[in-house]
Amino acid sequence: MAQTATPVDNGVNVEALLGAREALTAAPEAAKFKWRASCKWVNGTHSHSSVKSFFGLGEEQSHKTEFTFDADHPELFASEDNGMTPVEYVLVGLASCLTAGIAAVAQNREIQLKSVEASLEGDMDVRGILGVDSDVRNGFSGIKVTYNIDADASPEDIKALVAQSQKRSAVYDIITNPTNVKVEVA
Amino acid sequence: MAQTATPVDNGVNVEALLGAREALTAAPEAAKFKWRASCKWVNGTHSHSSVKSFFGLGEEQSHKTEFTFDADHPELFASEDNGMTPVEYVLVGLASCLTAGIAAVAQNREIQLKSVEASLEGDMDVRGILGVDSDVRNGFSGIKVTYNIDADASPEDIKALVAQSQKRSAVYDIITNPTNVKVEVA
Repeated sequence: MAQTATPVDNGVNVEALLGAREALTAAPEAAKFKWRASCKWVNGTHSHSSVKSFFGLGEEQSHKTEFTFDADHPELFASEDNGMTPVEYVLVGLASCLTAGIAAVAQNREIQLKSVEASLEGDMDVRGILGVDSDVRNGFSGIKVTYNIDADASPEDIKALVAQSQKRSAVYDIITNPTNVKVEVA
Repeated sequence: MAQTATPVDNGVNVEALLGAREALTAAPEAAKFKWRASCKWVNGTHSHSSVKSFFGLGEEQSHKTEFTFDADHPELFASEDNGMTPVEYVLVGLASCLTAGIAAVAQNREIQLKSVEASLEGDMDVRGILGVDSDVRNGFSGIKVTYNIDADASPEDIKALVAQSQKRSAVYDIITNPTNVKVEVA
């Protein structure tokens, strides 16, 4: 029996992205974005962060709503666990960046995704942040990301999809390569 | 007139942290933590992440509650803006990590904090993630963090406080230094 071709739909508007790529090739200044967050200390290790405005395409932009987040340390560090830890925010950023990329690349390659799930684990020796041993780094010694993907594609094509998402991921780049961070007191 | 000494209280239990430092110096295995996140693709660039369990002090641990987060791309990338972008999660992680550190160091140095606010801005040329120019990196070209701090301390002591927080910050380390990330398909 002949199969009826159903158009691949992962919810990503690839035409718009390819259009943006073309437009920004012609107008590189418009590609300069500024992403922002603000943070207020609440008490102890508890803080409250907000994200709303950003800059791009040559002008001020805004999310539809303001996104707000609490961060804290867990009770075993004598804190109140009012929010996820800062390093877990980094893991969520990595997970969501790679996952969005998988959907976009799949759409471009006409691969229908059925489900995509990621498990992340970051190893950290907390003797670094506690200042016990200056040879121990403060951050993760390594991160492992494991994907479970159900899609209309061969295992090889699924692996290639994930590899291409990694290649274009902003957060993967931020974590695997050094970025200059300037901290100032006003 | 003589001043009455009020004990400094920034809500950080420094005694517990110093105790942990001592305990983990004697038992380095207990300092090996694993931080985790899981992520499910929803549709398009929209994903849903959860954080609850972690491993530390030699056993499975758990946050008091499960923390859940939506991530998405904004409307100008032809997405639905159902959550903050992945790179903004990284900025929130950095802001909350440095801010928690400032509170902890201030407590240890007996500096009473009144207010701590941070503004973060990360520059990104989106021609990287769009694959327009392979010389443009995917992540931030740089991040600027500006603190406004009101505290019972001199401007020099406040600057030294922020510098010490940077020195011990896990997320500052993750962003400014390379970390190995292994991505696998199960």
